[in-house]
Amino acid sequence: MENAKAPLPCDILVTAAVVVTQNDAREVLRDAAVAISDGRVAAVGPRAQLTAAYAPAETLDLGEAMVLPGLINSHGHAAMTLFRGLCDDETLSVWLSQHIWPAEGKLTAEAVRQGTLLACAEMLASGTTCFLDAYFYNAAAAAAAEAAGIRAVICQGVFDMESAGFKSADASLAEGAALAEQLAGHDRLRAAVFPHAVYTCRRDTLERCAALARDRSLLLSTHAAETARENDDCLNANGKRVIPYLQELGMLSPRTLLAHGVALDEADIALLAASGTAVSHCPKSNMKLASGIAPVQALRQAGVTVGLGTDGPASNNALNLFSEMAFAALLQKVGTGDPTALEAGAVLDMATRDGAAALGWPELGRLTPGAPADLCALDLTRPALRPGLDPVSDAVYAASGGEVVLTMVAGRVLYRDGAFLTFDYEKLRRDAADTAARLTGR
Amino acid sequence: MENAKAPLPCDILVTAAVVVTQNDAREVLRDAAVAISDGRVAAVGPRAQLTAAYAPAETLDLGEAMVLPGLINSHGHAAMTLFRGLCDDETLSVWLSQHIWPAEGKLTAEAVRQGTLLACAEMLASGTTCFLDAYFYNAAAAAAAEAAGIRAVICQGVFDMESAGFKSADASLAEGAALAEQLAGHDRLRAAVFPHAVYTCRRDTLERCAALARDRSLLLSTHAAETARENDDCLNANGKRVIPYLQELGMLSPRTLLAHGVALDEADIALLAASGTAVSHCPKSNMKLASGIAPVQALRQAGVTVGLGTDGPASNNALNLFSEMAFAALLQKVGTGDPTALEAGAVLDMATRDGAAALGWPELGRLTPGAPADLCALDLTRPALRPGLDPVSDAVYAASGGEVVLTMVAGRVLYRDGAFLTFDYEKLRRDAADTAARLTGR
Repeated sequence: MENAKAPLPCDILVTAAVVVTQNDAREVLRDAAVAISDGRVAAVGPRAQLTAAYAPAETLDLGEAMVLPGLINSHGHAAMTLFRGLCDDETLSVWLSQHIWPAEGKLTAEAVRQGTLLACAEMLASGTTCFLDAYFYNAAAAAAAEAAGIRAVICQGVFDMESAGFKSADASLAEGAALAEQLAGHDRLRAAVFPHAVYTCRRDTLERCAALARDRSLLLSTHAAETARENDDCLNANGKRVIPYLQELGMLSPRTLLAHGVALDEADIALLAASGTAVSHCPKSNMKLASGIAPVQALRQAGVTVGLGTDGPASNNALNLFSEMAFAALLQKVGTGDPTALEAGAVLDMATRDGAAALGWPELGRLTPGAPADLCALDLTRPALRPGLDPVSDAVYAASGGEVVLTMVAGRVLYRDGAFLTFDYEKLRRDAADTAARLTGR
Repeated sequence: MENAKAPLPCDILVTAAVVVTQNDAREVLRDAAVAISDGRVAAVGPRAQLTAAYAPAETLDLGEAMVLPGLINSHGHAAMTLFRGLCDDETLSVWLSQHIWPAEGKLTAEAVRQGTLLACAEMLASGTTCFLDAYFYNAAAAAAAEAAGIRAVICQGVFDMESAGFKSADASLAEGAALAEQLAGHDRLRAAVFPHAVYTCRRDTLERCAALARDRSLLLSTHAAETARENDDCLNANGKRVIPYLQELGMLSPRTLLAHGVALDEADIALLAASGTAVSHCPKSNMKLASGIAPVQALRQAGVTVGLGTDGPASNNALNLFSEMAFAALLQKVGTGDPTALEAGAVLDMATRDGAAALGWPELGRLTPGAPADLCALDLTRPALRPGLDPVSDAVYAASGGEVVLTMVAGRVLYRDGAFLTFDYEKLRRDAADTAARLTGR
């Protein structure tokens, strides 16, 4: 008989019927476990093996559940939850000028805190553990993410236009630098710079944003090539399509993430690939606003990293990456006329590993030793996930997101069985409803 | 002081924060109630008014919930839940010939009963109260729907090709007549005739199906114009596109429901409109198989009744009409390039009133006095449905279906808070997993 090794201590041992690791080999383990210590994954493997190897302080036996890496929402405007359903089925200009902008004119820091926290609740309840946020009142957004315990990339927005919540580009850039200071060294929150778009920012403003991101080693993100018209306008104004113009300004780089990327030609795609620039694909928003179908398959084939984003909840109208995964896959199939395009595994990559890479946070999006312990679990007893022939297919095509029973960030359970464990959700939902009523007059 | 009227007896009084009636005026009532007697809606109105007017045997106070008419799934192959995830991301021919047909060759009546009951569970859990089913072993499918207590149109499939589960057209037509006898007078189950398609049924078989439906006053349904190729093949074989060919055979009528209707030209649409033929739109299936984008907006503008269908769970892969509503709306917007196309209210009509009309069961799909008491309720405290500015928008664009807390058919609660009240779901999900493993070899 061999000598039994003394079991190793760990904080939590999560056990479940299925663990989708999203490791390099994309292993899907049955009857498996994840050992967690100090907010990070210590080990992933067969349940029997990890049960023998570890002496956990706590065991979370999730039973007939599928554990996945927490999903990553790489583009959005979280606090717009307050405007969900305010205006649908309208053109972008009517939606913005007649509905959204007047309501945004009344925003306060406290409203943004509530709206962002409501977004955090919705994302946690549907398995998202990290999101990029580009909106007003960053400090309030960061406070909400902090309170929820979720992971986030909080962007400093920069505009060259009059807007209620926005200050001058100068002031915004200064705020961006301050945000970077404030969040430096934070385990879960990172700062980023988000010039709104080439049509709302002057050339020198875009260049200064790029410089700030470079100097502080921050992610640089912007809306780009969302519509064909944006390219036409950029050609008229700057003599180039959007992507070449961004290149000219030094904005394409491995630390750049472009939201949307719908109206891209082959030359644009080649520029993105050559520069290592990533794209956040937002299929539901692109469909709802009739912007078009992003060439996701072509981007991926060219080697461009593509993450998945919900965009704001006023143009989606959900913050549910399980739904977004199904939309991404199915839209690409019908858009290319090829049912084999963008298979389930590719879409799950976009919502996990690739989204992590797109945010410049590549240790996220996988359950491997050393990775932050960010995960979610689906209840496999729900009928939509039966009989369970292919867990990845079920996660992408069959799950609604309503099957999420647990969401954990950095080893801390934030959501379980309908309950939010880090903040007073009952109070929040009442406060947010009051605030939305005040902002919208409804 | 006026004389108080004696309160009227009723079986159940459902009260909720919001009731979406889908009546002719599309009234959405706040703080409202639905009185139910003998399986039918007795009254719908303000809570205070109905509380005063009725003395219910039972009160179901749903609190912060949105009550909607039960959703209607107008096209599907329910028992294919057993093959969910068996094969994805493949061409139709590979999917069918290498995966689905071999597995279907092993089907038994008991397998179909289990698969159909699993489908009923999934539909009830996501607010569907009535579905059309076209598959093998009708009696087993009817038994499952009976056991679940759900409403269904059970179709007799007819083929002119060798297939494991299918008999000759003669035998199938005889079975269809027998099914009609068996279900005649049933409150919740109706029989229909479903020749598979113009490319799998001979001309005389199609004509005999149409005659059977006419003679027995049954719905006649078939797959039609799912792809452009189907029109090409029909032109070659029969000298006409699919829709004119169906017209020539006498198959277009107000009692005909065509599934898919993707590859339709203006003349086709005019024929459908003139004949009163309805269409079941299956956006997720059409996208997943890259069949194309059905001209739903044009159909509706021409006056064609369009319902919503999931198609089979092996090509979707869910049976969730909340998801299907979002797909329908967003696909039409991006397909037409018009963000105002197919607004939320139109899609909700498709999933309720119009689906009911498409099935030839127009009293369904609305909560009005005299209508069958088929309804579902969404938990409005869930973050995705906050702040709740527009209930119809939230139901179509924001709900995942996971928010459903109650589903009732004919005044009987079949699903509540995760529990199935009419059958042993725990046993079913284990049996169905075993059966799926046996059929698929996984």
